Amino acid sequence: MSNGSMVPGPLSPEELQAVDAWWRAANYLALGMLYLQDNPLLKRPLEPSDIKARLLGHWGSDPGQSFIWAHLNRVIRARDLNMIYIAGPGHGAPATLANAYLEGTYPEVYPDRGWDEEGMKRFFKLFSFPGGVGSHCTPETPGSIHEGGELGYSLSHGFGAAFDNPDLIVTVVVGDGEAETGPMATSWHSNKFLNPARDGAVLPILHLNGYKIANPTLLARIPEEELLDLFRGYGYTPYVVAGEDPAVMHQQMAATLDTCLDTIRDIQRRARTGDSGKRPRWPMIILRTPKGWTAPRTVDGHYVEGYWRAHQVPIPDVTTNPEHLRLLEDWLRSYRPQELFEPSGRPAAFLRALAPTGPRRMSANPHANGGLLRKPLRLPDFRAYAVAVPHPGAVEAENTAVLGTYLRDVIRRNPRNFRLFGPDETASNRLQAVYEATGKAWMAENRPEDQDEGHLSPDGRVMEMLSEHTLEGWLEGYLLTGRHGLLNSYEAFVHIIDSMVNQHAKWIEKARQEVTWRAPIASLNILISSTVWRQDHNGFTHQDPGFLDVVTNKQAGVVRIYLPPDANCLLSVADHCLASTDYVNVIVADKQPHLQYLDMDSAATHCAKGIGLWDWAGTDADAEPEVVMAAAGDVATMEALAATALLRQHFPDLRLRFVNVVDLFKLQPPSQHPHGLPDRDYDSLFPPGVPVVFNFHGYPALVHKLTYRRAHHDRLHVHGYREAGSINTPLQLAILNGIDRFHLAIDAIDQVPRLGSRGTHVKEWLKDEILRHLAYACEHGIDPPEIRNWRWPQDL
Amino acid sequence: MSNGSMVPGPLSPEELQAVDAWWRAANYLALGMLYLQDNPLLKRPLEPSDIKARLLGHWGSDPGQSFIWAHLNRVIRARDLNMIYIAGPGHGAPATLANAYLEGTYPEVYPDRGWDEEGMKRFFKLFSFPGGVGSHCTPETPGSIHEGGELGYSLSHGFGAAFDNPDLIVTVVVGDGEAETGPMATSWHSNKFLNPARDGAVLPILHLNGYKIANPTLLARIPEEELLDLFRGYGYTPYVVAGEDPAVMHQQMAATLDTCLDTIRDIQRRARTGDSGKRPRWPMIILRTPKGWTAPRTVDGHYVEGYWRAHQVPIPDVTTNPEHLRLLEDWLRSYRPQELFEPSGRPAAFLRALAPTGPRRMSANPHANGGLLRKPLRLPDFRAYAVAVPHPGAVEAENTAVLGTYLRDVIRRNPRNFRLFGPDETASNRLQAVYEATGKAWMAENRPEDQDEGHLSPDGRVMEMLSEHTLEGWLEGYLLTGRHGLLNSYEAFVHIIDSMVNQHAKWIEKARQEVTWRAPIASLNILISSTVWRQDHNGFTHQDPGFLDVVTNKQAGVVRIYLPPDANCLLSVADHCLASTDYVNVIVADKQPHLQYLDMDSAATHCAKGIGLWDWAGTDADAEPEVVMAAAGDVATMEALAATALLRQHFPDLRLRFVNVVDLFKLQPPSQHPHGLPDRDYDSLFPPGVPVVFNFHGYPALVHKLTYRRAHHDRLHVHGYREAGSINTPLQLAILNGIDRFHLAIDAIDQVPRLGSRGTHVKEWLKDEILRHLAYACEHGIDPPEIRNWRWPQDL
Repeated sequence: MSNGSMVPGPLSPEELQAVDAWWRAANYLALGMLYLQDNPLLKRPLEPSDIKARLLGHWGSDPGQSFIWAHLNRVIRARDLNMIYIAGPGHGAPATLANAYLEGTYPEVYPDRGWDEEGMKRFFKLFSFPGGVGSHCTPETPGSIHEGGELGYSLSHGFGAAFDNPDLIVTVVVGDGEAETGPMATSWHSNKFLNPARDGAVLPILHLNGYKIANPTLLARIPEEELLDLFRGYGYTPYVVAGEDPAVMHQQMAATLDTCLDTIRDIQRRARTGDSGKRPRWPMIILRTPKGWTAPRTVDGHYVEGYWRAHQVPIPDVTTNPEHLRLLEDWLRSYRPQELFEPSGRPAAFLRALAPTGPRRMSANPHANGGLLRKPLRLPDFRAYAVAVPHPGAVEAENTAVLGTYLRDVIRRNPRNFRLFGPDETASNRLQAVYEATGKAWMAENRPEDQDEGHLSPDGRVMEMLSEHTLEGWLEGYLLTGRHGLLNSYEAFVHIIDSMVNQHAKWIEKARQEVTWRAPIASLNILISSTVWRQDHNGFTHQDPGFLDVVTNKQAGVVRIYLPPDANCLLSVADHCLASTDYVNVIVADKQPHLQYLDMDSAATHCAKGIGLWDWAGTDADAEPEVVMAAAGDVATMEALAATALLRQHFPDLRLRFVNVVDLFKLQPPSQHPHGLPDRDYDSLFPPGVPVVFNFHGYPALVHKLTYRRAHHDRLHVHGYREAGSINTPLQLAILNGIDRFHLAIDAIDQVPRLGSRGTHVKEWLKDEILRHLAYACEHGIDPPEIRNWRWPQDL
Repeated sequence: MSNGSMVPGPLSPEELQAVDAWWRAANYLALGMLYLQDNPLLKRPLEPSDIKARLLGHWGSDPGQSFIWAHLNRVIRARDLNMIYIAGPGHGAPATLANAYLEGTYPEVYPDRGWDEEGMKRFFKLFSFPGGVGSHCTPETPGSIHEGGELGYSLSHGFGAAFDNPDLIVTVVVGDGEAETGPMATSWHSNKFLNPARDGAVLPILHLNGYKIANPTLLARIPEEELLDLFRGYGYTPYVVAGEDPAVMHQQMAATLDTCLDTIRDIQRRARTGDSGKRPRWPMIILRTPKGWTAPRTVDGHYVEGYWRAHQVPIPDVTTNPEHLRLLEDWLRSYRPQELFEPSGRPAAFLRALAPTGPRRMSANPHANGGLLRKPLRLPDFRAYAVAVPHPGAVEAENTAVLGTYLRDVIRRNPRNFRLFGPDETASNRLQAVYEATGKAWMAENRPEDQDEGHLSPDGRVMEMLSEHTLEGWLEGYLLTGRHGLLNSYEAFVHIIDSMVNQHAKWIEKARQEVTWRAPIASLNILISSTVWRQDHNGFTHQDPGFLDVVTNKQAGVVRIYLPPDANCLLSVADHCLASTDYVNVIVADKQPHLQYLDMDSAATHCAKGIGLWDWAGTDADAEPEVVMAAAGDVATMEALAATALLRQHFPDLRLRFVNVVDLFKLQPPSQHPHGLPDRDYDSLFPPGVPVVFNFHGYPALVHKLTYRRAHHDRLHVHGYREAGSINTPLQLAILNGIDRFHLAIDAIDQVPRLGSRGTHVKEWLKDEILRHLAYACEHGIDPPEIRNWRWPQDL
């Protein structure tokens, strides 16, 4: 460090020394984590036996991140800020961990890694070590709501955390590698949805570290004016802090942070004193420092500091190369640990005094353990929104439209605790009743036309942007900080966030099982609508029910899938999901008019059981059925019922059972999923040996995957989407994939040999029906009226 | 249109009238497609029976897109350009179809929809109609390589098309809805990878149409200076064309296109005459026009033109509302069809003369039917790269590193026809030998450090950017225009492009089955490396083998999955995949050192069969085995072999068979997948009734999903990843998920009751071994040497 007293800036020489000392301490700890299993305070010369057998972890972004953290602590104390920190470069966990350790949070949470020599030794050794902690900001990391294992979501998480938290400032460090991802590139636009009057602030810091794993980063290699244009274009006021001389950098960073925080305060004050509704230009910082800052510039003639070789462990061979071991020791000692830690291992008193106190510490802020702050939703009685169902299958309703009326009142009753998210599809998915209660969040320009059912409002609680990634990131950030929400999406395009949902599920899995100090958060609720079976007009690209397959791969303790057949079941399921915690709930419900089957009481009972026999549809009475017709999903259920009606009309003596599945995991045995139906109950619904024709909403193999441990698995005949579709009528699309009433009836007849020539005769007729209906559709462009207006025959 | 002669600009009054006439004709056709099933030339007043029963399609972006197309045709003719058109707003297919029809391509390809009244009627009726064509730019659309059903990929497709096509200009119309997606937001940075000396040009046109389905678009509602900053920040020179008066807009658009094409020509000329290596500022156009331009501004007091109500069918009730039917007729007649089409239905002579000719027509450019231009790769003999395997399981190699030497020579032999794509992971995935042949494409700044193994080069053929979306988009665009490539990715993060791969598979499915005039394109080859079983150091976020589950949902004719157990098998598989067409090939191969089992001849034979018995590992000789040990995947195979060795050491009399699976779809019956092993052969490998312990690379349920139709399915005991992992040693991670040698051996013993107390005894010992190894790992951070150095015992 150059002579700090010579550099102009807001820090007094003492302040400068203090912030630099904190930074050195954090760097020392981070480097120790990468290498040491013993001799943590360097009380003796380093020996090969002090080094871990396997060197794992990332140094690259650590010093830059600790630099930021040190400066944030200064302003938190100076301004009494309520701030959390999101580490976009999550593989730079050593920085986050080091700072949590210095702040005392780590020893509080993990007393075996306390403020003494033994504790520090253990803290070092267990980093990225079997049985220890991960090399990313995993759920085990105090202060983290963002693991950063998969890149691209730090900023959308940050905005999600800031929504409805007016006093919170979320500092988001965006790695310049991560900045190349698509999800990150569009999430900068989140500023058009942040209302300074009711929401908190997000302070993005783009860390121009210069390199990824093995390449320069794009944003570090474009001219500075271009870079500034980019962030002005994203709607921010960018401030650059660039260099490598610590003294100069400390003063620059302190001055810049002061400016940014003054600006944030001014924006919020103006907005909160009547000037709301205008989108401000929020500040952001571009911090350009050498990758692996403070590491040796070269080792054996190869660049390390300021180059991609600093990404992971900069000097890998220290146990076998004595010269390199000395290099490492010199490097460790360059932070002057003896000034920073007492001989006992405790951080020096002046360092301890630099940390904010209690929950003001970013590592201990309760917003980063959102379950602590979570208040259960005030849910209206879902029964009040029931569709009247005089007889099963007699009336139609748009299932999601009914849900919309319920969600409208959820919004009304939880004005600061719940948001609805959708990629420009909330109305398309028929949830438009919510606009009676609120608008769509919008801080960009308003125009006169918008008064014509535009529903735009700075206070809107519906979040719409055409980026599933951003929405999912916002929602995750919102949940992780203790609030509630629901995302609705077209079924085919929810695959866009497969990987994000995977990662969130993994977070919950770890948090539930291994992190006792984390309180449960509200479940991630995903409503899949505009489903495959009603994408007959949009064609093949819009037909993909495979998200369910992805979800079933996650741990059984965390994932739930519901396929309510009608509106009352959807209400019951939604109520259950919104009240739950620590799950990923997936609800599949189409938006088009569908037949209604169950009155509210029956629906609630049916959904509570998750799977059940519909005796009004079947004919098996007290005897064992000859064939079971089963269905999961709204369209699948309707076609299966129509097949049942056909069979009953043609074979009044056939003993036919009808089973409907709402809770998909009922199909798995209890050994595989906590919702799994006990084998005895499963066998009672599907008596062993009795063939089952199963009409499934999704890809048929998923049912086989879930049921392969069940007895007599080979009597299951599953129909589902088999990747056949184009522009079709609804019945055509069903026929092309074999989930239509006719194919189902044919399949059922095939299962009952005793039907003999009667069966053959009816099958021939059914095949003719298929051809007739296909031809009708091709001529008229719609299905015949007897299909469009089909109702369950009440005289059966 | 205002009086065109009064508006200054490059178009003569005649040129202006001509381009406007083309535009009107295209608009007329697009509107006809949305509504009409009869009376296509309006020879009589419109009647309700002229209207299709179901009105499907999107008007919103059609007029803007046809406006662009009309102007592009002018410059194509004037400058003899080789240009293709990518419609980001793919749901605006009526525009693309209308222009293809006017250019005569459509009638050439679909003679039943020719240039006569009956043809036009059919052309109208079959749009978005059962048995007809889709409402997006599907594979059936001449001139399209981009369906646009899922948004976000138009620009990356465009850059992919331009790579190595120095004479091609790719005009990409980016919808402002699409522009909000993550993949699009980062793909603007593709300009840092386009070399003007060797590549073609991309001309992006951001169509600020103003609205999405039901919301304004972000980019249309930020101040113009902010918008310009954004695109300057992305590295472009933006030109704005904004307004709604056609005469003014025609002149502006013509002038702007001239400027852009002059700039492109200058950039290319400079680069190709020695000034290469510097990144130019390419031009792009921001076209701001009203959504649904030329539609009625209001209907019944609600905004239509210039509002989101113009998105789909602007006036839905024309069959039941006579006033609205008149409104539609007036609207149709406003384009003055009688001037544009002869009474026979043929486009007027002056219109026909406006189209470019032959392959210069964007609808007929062979680059948009890339299979026509595809030249097979000149592949080196993969056998020449073989690893010497003196005995099975005796030596180790990094499988992907070996593949790297082969790919190096693929690059050398195909200097303009093949590229390798990876998200900053090509070296991490150990393919670094390719850098002996080429560098990484890079047009941004170079620094002195980059000479230190930076491998950056404007001519590099390795494409690295930290965006799986952009890479996949580039590769798809490259393939669709007739070239070849391979994408490598970390296994867990290939889920990021689940949806893109889905959509590409769907494109191939349709193209193969239903579009006879499309020639086959090279397969999409995805190498999955850094797999779940060697992410023990990165932890839980990096462990997800579920991409295979997504791929198995696509049509069997299109998808292939390979799990080569060693380097020689990987070479054989890669050679096969690179020579193939119209598939999605997924290859799973880890990068760490792995045991080698098969010499080159055996590997080639094994891979050709796809599944096979390894008699050197088993002991069943000529007798029926008591248990079959099977494995798919490199690590899974190694552990299964180690289990086999344990079993043979303890039970020399056990009749044990070892089966290895390379081609995963061999597990399905031939009725489900063309690679499916006939039941007879399957039963011969896995004799009915004999228990099978199957060690699988991925989630175990996938094997059940593929094999549920096989006989005696319940004797399959599948081990695989079950979502248990953290920072572990390799063996620990295997143990946590039960794919380790000890659990496998225990499972096998359980299958052979005759082993009795001997079996019980050995099982106890195996359980102790598990505990012992877990403890060792937790103490030392690595596995014990007998695990790390395990080799197949040659004395068996």
